[in-house]
Amino acid sequence: MFLILARKFSLMNYTYQDLKLFTKQVLQSIGCSEEDSELASNVLLSADLRGVDSHGVARLSGYVRLYKAGRINPKPNIKIVHQTPTTAVVDGDAGLGLVVAPYAMELATEMAEKYGSGWVSVKNSNHYGIAGYHSMIALEKDMIGMSMTNASPLVSPTFSKERMLGTNPISIAIPAGEEDDFVADMATTTAANGKLEILQRKQQDAPMGWVQDKDGNPTTNSSGVKEGGALLPLGGDREHGSHKGYALSSIVDIFSAVLSGANYGPWVPPFVSFLSPSENPVGEGLGHFLGAMRVDAFRPKEEYFQHIDNWIRTFRNAETVNGQEKVLIPGDPEREFEAIRSKEGIPLLKPVVEDLKTLAEEYQIDFPSELIPN
Amino acid sequence: MFLILARKFSLMNYTYQDLKLFTKQVLQSIGCSEEDSELASNVLLSADLRGVDSHGVARLSGYVRLYKAGRINPKPNIKIVHQTPTTAVVDGDAGLGLVVAPYAMELATEMAEKYGSGWVSVKNSNHYGIAGYHSMIALEKDMIGMSMTNASPLVSPTFSKERMLGTNPISIAIPAGEEDDFVADMATTTAANGKLEILQRKQQDAPMGWVQDKDGNPTTNSSGVKEGGALLPLGGDREHGSHKGYALSSIVDIFSAVLSGANYGPWVPPFVSFLSPSENPVGEGLGHFLGAMRVDAFRPKEEYFQHIDNWIRTFRNAETVNGQEKVLIPGDPEREFEAIRSKEGIPLLKPVVEDLKTLAEEYQIDFPSELIPN
Repeated sequence: MFLILARKFSLMNYTYQDLKLFTKQVLQSIGCSEEDSELASNVLLSADLRGVDSHGVARLSGYVRLYKAGRINPKPNIKIVHQTPTTAVVDGDAGLGLVVAPYAMELATEMAEKYGSGWVSVKNSNHYGIAGYHSMIALEKDMIGMSMTNASPLVSPTFSKERMLGTNPISIAIPAGEEDDFVADMATTTAANGKLEILQRKQQDAPMGWVQDKDGNPTTNSSGVKEGGALLPLGGDREHGSHKGYALSSIVDIFSAVLSGANYGPWVPPFVSFLSPSENPVGEGLGHFLGAMRVDAFRPKEEYFQHIDNWIRTFRNAETVNGQEKVLIPGDPEREFEAIRSKEGIPLLKPVVEDLKTLAEEYQIDFPSELIPN
Repeated sequence: MFLILARKFSLMNYTYQDLKLFTKQVLQSIGCSEEDSELASNVLLSADLRGVDSHGVARLSGYVRLYKAGRINPKPNIKIVHQTPTTAVVDGDAGLGLVVAPYAMELATEMAEKYGSGWVSVKNSNHYGIAGYHSMIALEKDMIGMSMTNASPLVSPTFSKERMLGTNPISIAIPAGEEDDFVADMATTTAANGKLEILQRKQQDAPMGWVQDKDGNPTTNSSGVKEGGALLPLGGDREHGSHKGYALSSIVDIFSAVLSGANYGPWVPPFVSFLSPSENPVGEGLGHFLGAMRVDAFRPKEEYFQHIDNWIRTFRNAETVNGQEKVLIPGDPEREFEAIRSKEGIPLLKPVVEDLKTLAEEYQIDFPSELIPN
């Protein structure tokens, strides 16, 4: 299976450790501290490990280009600018979101430790990788974690042809006892942009409900977004509830940016460095929202864990429709990727490898050798 | 327009005030206090006013039947059974959810007043009407309000043919300054059950993505749920993101019931009195989750209101696709209904009126006269 896929898409395979070390060295080369580089490479590589290829090491050169464009500060002075016992606003000082978000999440868990819950809205940040990395920080403390971020405008509200929102993901991580944790991590669009990119590469159509063209008409053209169209909110069209996806995405935008003082809606700075941020920004950088609630702030731990385990087992054992093996718990697909890739390595597309090799050359860092599967 | 609709569906029209008084009198007749009856009829009638006909006075006889079945306690001793500075669990003592949820929401706002945020999980409650009523309690205090509830199992997880979840709605209310407030209120299914009931009445098919049949196959049969099938989570199928709707619905279930000690998943007691609750419950009654965050716990009020107003204006003015008049802000459709119905009256279907007249007779209460539009 692996070899068939590898040949078809020219995949090359590397160990997690090698790619992480390489990523860390690149980040240190642009001036990030050893500690920040370690943390940021952890976040990036967790995406590759968990199968979210679009948010992992494939983005490394994008972050470097943002640094070169003066939009990422490698030595940020991240600070709290407003605080109550259970809420805070953090100024990321234009640092890597990969570093700013874990700082904010730690703060949320500290407040939850004392007061039951903690909520942090973040401004002046950049792309923070996968939402699930940050929400999962809460799990080891027996807390529920929440993580959301706004992002480059690529999505149209229901009835509009303008791009007003990002894919604005929401992740909610809920700790279990003996069972696997519940970890939802989802773009508030029908499909993530990464899935469209795969279809474009294969020159295949997208299902209806994923994309609209530049006039706002539904289309199966998987390049529709690149040609001036937009991604569609979860639901796809009004009849299938796209107004709900639009509302969810809007809530992410407001919690992340209107509460903190970051840019929102069409003003969110684009991830790609060749597009300039708005000359009339409504805030600073992009925004995140992170939160934590202690499970024993509601109920004794042993009772909670008994029932969450029962919930998970009950849903896992729900009767399937013909042709489906099992009912999944949010987090299962990522766990499966992690189990395989931590043993068999992380497959990268050839263009990604070439892109990384250019970075290796520029910063005179050894690029790891390919892992040849047995 | 009104008269055409009225003739087609045999609608009869009543004033808000008349229906509210009638509802209050019925609730007092089953033993609810004057204060609780006033509050509960406010909640129920707000659904009718806002156009959510399925959750309004049409359900009154359903609540009465639950009372007769011994499942609703008209004189509940609602109490806090666990509390930290910003979290609590409330035991609804089998009271009307219409009364229990506002109690819990008040508690959430009191905690938010002191500590920035407040979060309450509720057990041992019953159906709480429209989610949006409760989240909106926060608005007048310049807070963001959240409200969710689990409900009778009618929805299948992605890949399953079992009914494991309710339509589990989420409402998030965000206060604006000069603009209209942002009030999202949505079932986590593609379509609410009420919309299916309208199609059944008209003997029309449902769009694909709303319903599956008893074997878990997608169907356009609008009676599919009644015939052993299930409602589908927002997204409809895996390709269109139904795993996201399933995750959202699960989060509502866990926050409402696993945190509080209510019944969850397939154990949630059915709303209809002719179906008995499980003989082996995993908790008490059904559950809600309510929360509040002060906007000035993040940012000075004037700054916040300036930017939320700008957000709302910007989205309202987004360019529309051909044939659409405007981009809506969540809460707009309900506001439009409220404007019309508070002037022109609340239209009820003939079977609903007959059902209410039976209650009037049973409890010897005057039933209001029909409002004849000019």
